[in-house]
Amino acid sequence: MAVVAKLSNTTDSNELTALDALRNLCATDMERVNQLILNNMESNVPLIPQLAGHLIAAGGKRLRPLLTLASAGICNYRGKNHISLATAVEFIHTASLLHDDVVDDSGLRRGRDTANSVWGNQSTVLVGDFLFSRAFRLMVQSDSIRVLDILANASAVIAEGEVAQLTTANNTDTEEDSYLNVISSKTAALFAAACQIGAVIGERPSQEENALYQYGLNLGIAFQLVDDYLDYGASDNRLGKDVGDDFREGKITLPVILAFRRGKTEEQDFWRRTLENLDQNKDDFNYAQKLLNEHKALSETQVRARGYTETARTALNVFPQSPYKKALEEVVDFCVDRSY
Amino acid sequence: MAVVAKLSNTTDSNELTALDALRNLCATDMERVNQLILNNMESNVPLIPQLAGHLIAAGGKRLRPLLTLASAGICNYRGKNHISLATAVEFIHTASLLHDDVVDDSGLRRGRDTANSVWGNQSTVLVGDFLFSRAFRLMVQSDSIRVLDILANASAVIAEGEVAQLTTANNTDTEEDSYLNVISSKTAALFAAACQIGAVIGERPSQEENALYQYGLNLGIAFQLVDDYLDYGASDNRLGKDVGDDFREGKITLPVILAFRRGKTEEQDFWRRTLENLDQNKDDFNYAQKLLNEHKALSETQVRARGYTETARTALNVFPQSPYKKALEEVVDFCVDRSY
Repeated sequence: MAVVAKLSNTTDSNELTALDALRNLCATDMERVNQLILNNMESNVPLIPQLAGHLIAAGGKRLRPLLTLASAGICNYRGKNHISLATAVEFIHTASLLHDDVVDDSGLRRGRDTANSVWGNQSTVLVGDFLFSRAFRLMVQSDSIRVLDILANASAVIAEGEVAQLTTANNTDTEEDSYLNVISSKTAALFAAACQIGAVIGERPSQEENALYQYGLNLGIAFQLVDDYLDYGASDNRLGKDVGDDFREGKITLPVILAFRRGKTEEQDFWRRTLENLDQNKDDFNYAQKLLNEHKALSETQVRARGYTETARTALNVFPQSPYKKALEEVVDFCVDRSY
Repeated sequence: MAVVAKLSNTTDSNELTALDALRNLCATDMERVNQLILNNMESNVPLIPQLAGHLIAAGGKRLRPLLTLASAGICNYRGKNHISLATAVEFIHTASLLHDDVVDDSGLRRGRDTANSVWGNQSTVLVGDFLFSRAFRLMVQSDSIRVLDILANASAVIAEGEVAQLTTANNTDTEEDSYLNVISSKTAALFAAACQIGAVIGERPSQEENALYQYGLNLGIAFQLVDDYLDYGASDNRLGKDVGDDFREGKITLPVILAFRRGKTEEQDFWRRTLENLDQNKDDFNYAQKLLNEHKALSETQVRARGYTETARTALNVFPQSPYKKALEEVVDFCVDRSY
């Protein structure tokens, strides 16, 4: 399939180019966000900046705060609240990663040891809570009750999605719509909110607010589809986390749902043994990859992702041409074509 | 010591009487709070109300929401926001209990199995996050940026206190002021905020707001001192959680700090072995209780608690006599004399 070929041929520099317009456009704002991140990690309890800094210093794409900055930009927002809100969005994301690492007990995140594997689950949960509270303090500074409402709601939806994911884990009977509900909640809700609040602080009409919400939501769904694809497809090195984590934990993602549905009885038995009973041998992951390829489950996941990104791109039509619009359009390509 | 004798002689009915005035005064409001608690636990993901309901249905004293209701009452607040704020305060507390149970891995809470021992750490962390987010959504409904600021700050301070507690755990060199910082943060900050916001929504002058803050802060410190006392002193049955949890986990609380400081070398070696190395035999807890009694560490902890409650009581002096004032004064006695 062409899309798959494209993904595997994409070079890092091409990917950087796809995000470059956005990064350049938001460079000054992003410096302020980074400074605010550092300031708000501070505490009299030294373990807090140590543990939070471990994850935050590892970088990551900072995609969510960039989306808030660019959404404020496309709405011609001229104030300063987008800085603290972008920081709050990154903190919500970071807190949720910390809690997710405790939950998943995974070994690598952004190419480094996870915080819980260094400092233990206890500290990791609590530092997550600290960052989450600081996120709310930052939002309060924006002085907008609507923004607070949107982000508080998104946070509850994220947690709901994560719990729902636990209840679908290890269940090979999971239907595609349950999976879509999970990823819409655990991932796309924050993308959507991160974009929507740009329109809220920009005091734009509801049509534009809704357009940014739809852009973020669909981009987020595509982003997670690609994440789930990459967990079976990328090399450890580029992804910066363990390939095969989802398989080892018995997470039921779209590639598996498609391959399970299309598989013969023996294959379905294989998925049940490995994902439901977590009874896995050393060659099982390779065999899983083989089955996914045979049933075109990976390539089809990418096709679906591309469908959502097209919806995201179309949502931006209500905005006139501008450098911010162009940059947000390019992010769409990055989200599907990325290999990390 | 008289105070100790009083504590061990106190009957349940006396204790109930001490809280009765407050409970009766706030009964109608509290029914609304309980209804709002149920409504806000709801989710399409069935595990969420199940898990949250397990802890919330177990009851607990509901002391913190009662404090918010009574503080609004003493300030003659006539609106409806105290209901959603009292609910938010209870949710912050519940979320923090859920995360605390994961952290402490204790076996009993409010006389029932902890959520994590039934549903596992993963779900417990995430349902805590959900309740915490819902707390913020409830606060947003109050439409007061100041209230949001106070509660977001308190939440961050609670997490800081919990992390600080982890860093003092198993360290018998912990000084009394470090311990006091920990309990002021992890426990008293929410008591203080729960009371302060009553004055904020009541639009009272800063003197009254500060008085309620001081009342809550000092009451909260006393409450935690008694908690730490009861962990060595109460029978399992009445406390509704495992007696000796703190000892088993190597938590450094005031009774231990006092006994350690006053102990002979062999005794200090005992504390180091049991609390630092967690090398504990079956008779060690009884011996620990014996040492605490010999050095009057438990009775002195109670005397300290009484000092803080007197400060709390005095803080209320700025308010004229009223049924709410009387009820808040009686809560002070409950907090020191309680045996659960």
